[in-house]
Amino acid sequence: MSDTKIFFDNASTTKVDPRVLKDMLPYFSEHYGNPSSLHDFGDTAHGALDNARSQVASLIGANDEEIYFTSCGTESNNLALWGLVRSSKKENGHIITSAIEHHSIINPLKDIKKEGWDITHIGVDNNGLVDPDKIRQAITDSTLLISIMHANNEVGTIQNLKEISGIAKKNEILFHSDGIATAGVIPVDIGELGVDTYSFSSQQMYGPKGAAALYLKKGVRLKPMLQGGIQERGRRAGTENIPAIVGFGRACEIAKNELDKNAKHISSIRDKLEKGIIGNIDKVKLNGHPSRRIPGSTHISFEFIEGESIL
Amino acid sequence: MSDTKIFFDNASTTKVDPRVLKDMLPYFSEHYGNPSSLHDFGDTAHGALDNARSQVASLIGANDEEIYFTSCGTESNNLALWGLVRSSKKENGHIITSAIEHHSIINPLKDIKKEGWDITHIGVDNNGLVDPDKIRQAITDSTLLISIMHANNEVGTIQNLKEISGIAKKNEILFHSDGIATAGVIPVDIGELGVDTYSFSSQQMYGPKGAAALYLKKGVRLKPMLQGGIQERGRRAGTENIPAIVGFGRACEIAKNELDKNAKHISSIRDKLEKGIIGNIDKVKLNGHPSRRIPGSTHISFEFIEGESIL
Repeated sequence: MSDTKIFFDNASTTKVDPRVLKDMLPYFSEHYGNPSSLHDFGDTAHGALDNARSQVASLIGANDEEIYFTSCGTESNNLALWGLVRSSKKENGHIITSAIEHHSIINPLKDIKKEGWDITHIGVDNNGLVDPDKIRQAITDSTLLISIMHANNEVGTIQNLKEISGIAKKNEILFHSDGIATAGVIPVDIGELGVDTYSFSSQQMYGPKGAAALYLKKGVRLKPMLQGGIQERGRRAGTENIPAIVGFGRACEIAKNELDKNAKHISSIRDKLEKGIIGNIDKVKLNGHPSRRIPGSTHISFEFIEGESIL
Repeated sequence: MSDTKIFFDNASTTKVDPRVLKDMLPYFSEHYGNPSSLHDFGDTAHGALDNARSQVASLIGANDEEIYFTSCGTESNNLALWGLVRSSKKENGHIITSAIEHHSIINPLKDIKKEGWDITHIGVDNNGLVDPDKIRQAITDSTLLISIMHANNEVGTIQNLKEISGIAKKNEILFHSDGIATAGVIPVDIGELGVDTYSFSSQQMYGPKGAAALYLKKGVRLKPMLQGGIQERGRRAGTENIPAIVGFGRACEIAKNELDKNAKHISSIRDKLEKGIIGNIDKVKLNGHPSRRIPGSTHISFEFIEGESIL
């Protein structure tokens, strides 16, 4: 094994790819216009924004106009939940979610509950999988929305979104998925997944912090959270962070082109690591689904050892 | 006059200062950790975050722990308004604002109105000034909040925040000010202004897009908008955009050191421009306050000419 450092927390954030940074640099100091302004500087920024939107849409097979830029994955998840709830005609509806969502789903749902909504949390099996049948059973006449993450960023188990979206569609229920741990890591075909909204983020795929996206299926109503100017067709006010968005676009393009190669490389590192640990240390246990999980994720329980000291 | 290009829309966005960009670069590719993570990479990011918070606080004379980072000025303004309204015990309160606020104040207030709140818009005089007496007269028993911008980014007139904050304090009313066009451009002493919350942004002072701040006076309650992790002490969830925050910190430091020099330089360019235009073209009129305005701002009416063709 070479001497290369392997950063074990890429699910929390990644290093910016040098190719991505190179594309971003001119937008800090040369093309620094505001895309909403009516002058040449603004025009260049506007072209860059359109180009990035295409690159981001292309990663998940969406149409350009279904991509809305936000500042981070947390914002995308918050926007999806609050946006769908606030544009619903139901006053006290019902939402189904899993027991293993990220805090950017769990915490807004706590507040939505305080406003009088019912929230059902579906547990997962030993492999971290949500059973679609349990979702089917939880549906009531008031159910507005199902929110199930694509894959958990710690355990890595990939959920069966296609089956869940079938259930949602049949019952005329909206379906959101948090794809922050998956988009750019495994192939995502948004049409096949059948979701109405889908969050994903630049910083999980070697793009810069400061840019993320919400996919919003054409025709689905969503009330904005941030209000002000008419950026992002009125769905997300605030001057667009052009350098970060340009970087996000390039990161999506690179991820799309190199997905298979990287996934194999990362899986092989993970498998070696797991074999090494499990083969050489007693009292360890592999968590998550043995095959149905994202390539860069491993979740191993060490008995009798305090977590922080391992890191 | 030299051949240098002068960008006339610095109130909308500025070029990133090369010194700022230089400080940011290592955080894209070397120190790219997540400050909330429990490992060395995270520690470096955490130190950078603390340092930037001090630089930002110092620009306006605040304590470090009164500064909350957001993604843009629009988010800071939205957070202040919704955060103060949602943490108030009043159900249908009253808010006083001016007729010349930015859309990131106007539009959230429209929605707050839809929730049953009363909003009073105070007009301005010929010089763009809000008369504090009109605010005094508008106060009712239900008034929760006064929101008056520090200076309008188009006309540039600087409002008398000190007098307005005196009125607010006397009546136990909260006071927010949008300082996006002022912080980093004119000296700001937050204690002297007497505001409870104050928004300002990196991109207006030669810092990068993607970072802004909300000053929140110690002891004032504010409900977060973005919910998820415990970043920014629970008041703004989402992984911190470290490179942008580092750049914002440096931009504040530079602005603080160079404020007087720059203000004189920019005022002199503005004055030459105004003299040149007003002296040589008929049917033009200078808008805004003749002396009480930010140095980089000029607002001139050209009769009979369509606006876009001038740019």
